[in-house]
Amino acid sequence: MSPERDRSHAPPSAVPETAVLIGVDWGSSSVRATLIDRGGNVVGAERLDAGVRKARGPACEQVFDVLLGRWSAAVERLPVLLTGMVGSAQGWREAPYVSAPAGLADVAQELVEAPRPGAWIVPGVSGQAVSGAPDVMRGEETQLFGLDGDGPVLLPGTHTKWAELEDGQVTRFTTCLTGEIFELLRNPGLIGTVMAGSTLDEAAFERGLTDLGGPGGLLHHLFTIRSRVLLGDLQAEEAWSYASALLIGSEVAAMVEARPLPGVVRVIGTEDLAQLYRLALKRHGVEAHCVSGLDASVRGLLRLAMAAGLVDE
Amino acid sequence: MSPERDRSHAPPSAVPETAVLIGVDWGSSSVRATLIDRGGNVVGAERLDAGVRKARGPACEQVFDVLLGRWSAAVERLPVLLTGMVGSAQGWREAPYVSAPAGLADVAQELVEAPRPGAWIVPGVSGQAVSGAPDVMRGEETQLFGLDGDGPVLLPGTHTKWAELEDGQVTRFTTCLTGEIFELLRNPGLIGTVMAGSTLDEAAFERGLTDLGGPGGLLHHLFTIRSRVLLGDLQAEEAWSYASALLIGSEVAAMVEARPLPGVVRVIGTEDLAQLYRLALKRHGVEAHCVSGLDASVRGLLRLAMAAGLVDE
Repeated sequence: MSPERDRSHAPPSAVPETAVLIGVDWGSSSVRATLIDRGGNVVGAERLDAGVRKARGPACEQVFDVLLGRWSAAVERLPVLLTGMVGSAQGWREAPYVSAPAGLADVAQELVEAPRPGAWIVPGVSGQAVSGAPDVMRGEETQLFGLDGDGPVLLPGTHTKWAELEDGQVTRFTTCLTGEIFELLRNPGLIGTVMAGSTLDEAAFERGLTDLGGPGGLLHHLFTIRSRVLLGDLQAEEAWSYASALLIGSEVAAMVEARPLPGVVRVIGTEDLAQLYRLALKRHGVEAHCVSGLDASVRGLLRLAMAAGLVDE
Repeated sequence: MSPERDRSHAPPSAVPETAVLIGVDWGSSSVRATLIDRGGNVVGAERLDAGVRKARGPACEQVFDVLLGRWSAAVERLPVLLTGMVGSAQGWREAPYVSAPAGLADVAQELVEAPRPGAWIVPGVSGQAVSGAPDVMRGEETQLFGLDGDGPVLLPGTHTKWAELEDGQVTRFTTCLTGEIFELLRNPGLIGTVMAGSTLDEAAFERGLTDLGGPGGLLHHLFTIRSRVLLGDLQAEEAWSYASALLIGSEVAAMVEARPLPGVVRVIGTEDLAQLYRLALKRHGVEAHCVSGLDASVRGLLRLAMAAGLVDE
């Protein structure tokens, strides 16, 4: 955190008069603060690579001060809403899960005051996955509350969530370990060492989807990344896309099989990541519409703050 | 390697007159040498934690000298047969793959002389997996040649192989990344941190197999290890068995689906590992018979040495 500490000595930044809320998306690896106006526009932003994996418990206070140091005058007059892993047992202060089905009002009612006056932590949501297993989310509920309308929503990431919105409530949701497995495989191991590149090669991705459809299962197909590259059947530059297709294709196939999807699903995230899911979903006749993660998050934070009475509606 | 270097200064060990071959099973993480008599009995053994991941290329020579240091007199009069990753491009000297179908004679014919007189490297075998993908093995072919009779043979490990023996030849074989994924998940990550224990809890294993049979797919079920432990639905001490069941169960289901298995398959490895596969195979009406990996390896080495004329039949 040392290089970023300097930021607390940076000149204070002018905070626009229109700002009504400071929203903080506090994850495992990074923390992102946004100054939000009444219309849901971002009028200022700060970021630190100091998520709860790096600074946990009481150390979060220091992260908070450094992150919002340039806005110190505004921190005194504006409410601060924190969402994500900051509310986990490893975070700053635990905000117990709200049980699904959970709507905006249910979650807004259970905000937990952070160890700093005027700052509140959004609780996560616990519920049941398609498998019947208990499942949990922290942070994604805020993004989901930023959307309008119902239906299935995909939130790709280290732990991809497949959530369902019904009457504005988060009902069932299912987490898949896809992103974490992909990162583990990219590390220098037997697969990682034969993988080059990190951008989409659409032909290689499509080939991965097709091959996965054949016999052998995911655990075999993952090994073939290595054997194919070794024996010249796949280029190292194609391996990133091929591996992505195996993992995402396997996730999507299982989720589509678990319950019917409508013709269109929304994907919250970057266009790059949404594109991978778009290709995999297309094989099952489902279209994917991408929604910006920042937009969803900012709108969800503002709606939660209004529902909790921290910002006038 | 430093503590083991001392071994070269250890007093020479008496080599029984009955020894006819020194067999070396040289893998990624360790190297195991055995003195073998004409009956296929082990009459001496040495071991070093210095596989090709630690010492590669020319550094293998040093490993060879330390490993066989106590038998130096015997090394001059006995043939040495090396099998495993020592023959890979990262090993001591590359021994190109023999194409499947490959029998004892095919492989014995392609032994590659090691950079030390009297020492020979057994080539691996390349072939086609059930998926149609190219697949490779190094070391397992030697164990397979140590068996009598045909049929499917499982070789569980970091990269589990499902091989087929027909008329004594290795025909089709399929590799699954099961063991490697398991080890990656055990490392301190979101799953690893909630896992305790490393021995079989049969009830937890059976539960994992049953849950995997429900909707959600492997990538979701792996995540539930964490959510179940967090929410009290699974004990940390059960998580090792539950996770093993998800991975092995998924592998076995895909392999059984890929092609029919007979009522009994052989599993080369330890009884502990074979037991996990036994439970998973039982769900598909298949029985597993365990064969000792050391026995198979020693018998395979002796047969290869005889077929190559290094040891009189």
